[in-house]
Amino acid sequence: MFRNFKLVPNIIFGRGCFAQLDEIIEKQRRNTDSWVVFVTDDVFREAPLEKRLPLYDNDLLLWVNVADEPKTKYVDELTLKVKAHRPTLPCAIIGIGGGSSMDLAKAISLMLTNEGSSTLYQGWDLIKNPAIYHMAVPTLSGTGAEVSRTAVLTGPEKKLGLNSDYTVFDQVVLDPELIKDVPRDQHFYTGMDCYIHCIESLQGTYLNEFSKSYGEKALDLCRQVFLDDHPDKDDKLMMASFFGGMSIAYSQVGACHALSYGLSYVLGTHHGIGCCIVFDYLEDIYPEGVKEFRTMMKKCDMELPRGLVKDLDPEQVDRMITVALGLEPLWENCLGQDWKHIMTRNKARALFLRM
Amino acid sequence: MFRNFKLVPNIIFGRGCFAQLDEIIEKQRRNTDSWVVFVTDDVFREAPLEKRLPLYDNDLLLWVNVADEPKTKYVDELTLKVKAHRPTLPCAIIGIGGGSSMDLAKAISLMLTNEGSSTLYQGWDLIKNPAIYHMAVPTLSGTGAEVSRTAVLTGPEKKLGLNSDYTVFDQVVLDPELIKDVPRDQHFYTGMDCYIHCIESLQGTYLNEFSKSYGEKALDLCRQVFLDDHPDKDDKLMMASFFGGMSIAYSQVGACHALSYGLSYVLGTHHGIGCCIVFDYLEDIYPEGVKEFRTMMKKCDMELPRGLVKDLDPEQVDRMITVALGLEPLWENCLGQDWKHIMTRNKARALFLRM
Repeated sequence: MFRNFKLVPNIIFGRGCFAQLDEIIEKQRRNTDSWVVFVTDDVFREAPLEKRLPLYDNDLLLWVNVADEPKTKYVDELTLKVKAHRPTLPCAIIGIGGGSSMDLAKAISLMLTNEGSSTLYQGWDLIKNPAIYHMAVPTLSGTGAEVSRTAVLTGPEKKLGLNSDYTVFDQVVLDPELIKDVPRDQHFYTGMDCYIHCIESLQGTYLNEFSKSYGEKALDLCRQVFLDDHPDKDDKLMMASFFGGMSIAYSQVGACHALSYGLSYVLGTHHGIGCCIVFDYLEDIYPEGVKEFRTMMKKCDMELPRGLVKDLDPEQVDRMITVALGLEPLWENCLGQDWKHIMTRNKARALFLRM
Repeated sequence: MFRNFKLVPNIIFGRGCFAQLDEIIEKQRRNTDSWVVFVTDDVFREAPLEKRLPLYDNDLLLWVNVADEPKTKYVDELTLKVKAHRPTLPCAIIGIGGGSSMDLAKAISLMLTNEGSSTLYQGWDLIKNPAIYHMAVPTLSGTGAEVSRTAVLTGPEKKLGLNSDYTVFDQVVLDPELIKDVPRDQHFYTGMDCYIHCIESLQGTYLNEFSKSYGEKALDLCRQVFLDDHPDKDDKLMMASFFGGMSIAYSQVGACHALSYGLSYVLGTHHGIGCCIVFDYLEDIYPEGVKEFRTMMKKCDMELPRGLVKDLDPEQVDRMITVALGLEPLWENCLGQDWKHIMTRNKARALFLRM
């Protein structure tokens, strides 16, 4: 059984194509009551981008804060805010920002048409009704959130996405000019999220030629960005993120993502930097990838935080291990069906304690 | 202004995924009257594939002959046949075969909902109504017809496609097992269609990073198929065709396609072999590509027909030149805005006379 993969059906790519946003949204404004929500990362408050948003009278500019990764409670609050804005539902939700802002936009567009709290839909294919038309405008590249079928949320009980075909964006606007001012650290960590997940999927046991073609090209593009400092690096990183996301269709991430989920769950570490911290200790599993990653760190003059785990309470480390080892498909992809004999709790503990 | 590119929204890829066809089509069979048309290349008549088609009582198995490239007259006849089969419209059109069969399926799905002859819609965005749901099952890879927004048709006045967002398939089923028995010559010529169009687009003036990423990977996959004789070559050629088609989003073909249209128009030469015949004489424009193409020919032990043009009537050669030079965007992409001073009628004549 192969998965019938749902793709983003409309993509526009080009330096400056953000200027076409108004025209693209207009097709959704079918009558005079139609209104649009711009779910926008609040780092752009009073930034030049704010003035470029094609806002009309009834539209809602919804600033979102992603200092913490998206929570179900926050999604529920934002959904209520949108519902309270006008008596009708909006005709379009536009997510502008990085992976977290895009995931919030996806989640809101789903929760406007599916009753109850977003916690009810954390899992696979639990969403019952199609979402409101939703669009992504990434201003940060690497996570692949612009093409994924999930909106990753942390709930009271679990960190798990709203995974469904309805989650997939209806439109993506890829304008490389929008990522030129990303802070250096964030640029590196988010780019490495893409690099690492390609290494994990290409070295995994779940691969086929579809995912391999996308993953290999994403890796090639990452190298041009982080090793060659290519003059078109913004364009290339945007494509790497898109290809990296597409490569997940028939593959899976691996040990690094699994361990980083444990780290994030207990310490609240952000996803990109969490992956980097973990990957640096996985030379036994991904020897070539880790070597190249360290070269990229040196080239980009990056240093990682160290000693995050050693002083933690043993119970916290235990919880980290439980969360990490709970992600069975990731381990099976990485180490094969016999993974439980290879990545024991003690082995995972030893790895975490080095971090 | 950048083009907002319409993608195929659902793709399934995998060896043997053809077995899931019934289940995928089933979602379109919404009531007991629902029926499906299988537009199938007649080379499969009495072949094992015929028995594997998930046909139900009211369905229509429509054999199509693609010895000649698709004509508007043929599309109109086939559309009438479909309309006559049942009082309601079908719920799905499934195109099974190579580029020509897939283009026929696209054209029929459009002509069932748009009045009059298909000749009325040859051009860009002339289609008024959405098509019937249509799906591609390629059994030959290289043309990229499975992802393109055109259905190329030869009419009484012109050879020009039905180009529109509605033309794009709703679903593509990519099963590499289906291309394993393609005759050796056809496999080579169709694969070279992909190789050549990537060379033309990557060396063109219209390129951006989206098209470059897809085109470069398609070329890499073609090399693994035709130079390395890779054990997974069927999977790789299927992906090369898909990526090659995607790369056209923000690029254009060039001199080889333009000249080959002239050749096909006058001599009826099929598209793949036509491109190969022409490309072999374009070492001045694509020196490295032609060199590698010749290595591929040698590796695959292929020989091209020669001396097709020299004995033609001068009027026929004139018509060839007029058709080829009429494709202005292809020349501009290839030679820049000043192309008319470079590719003169005399230069084109000299090229054709060598073929």
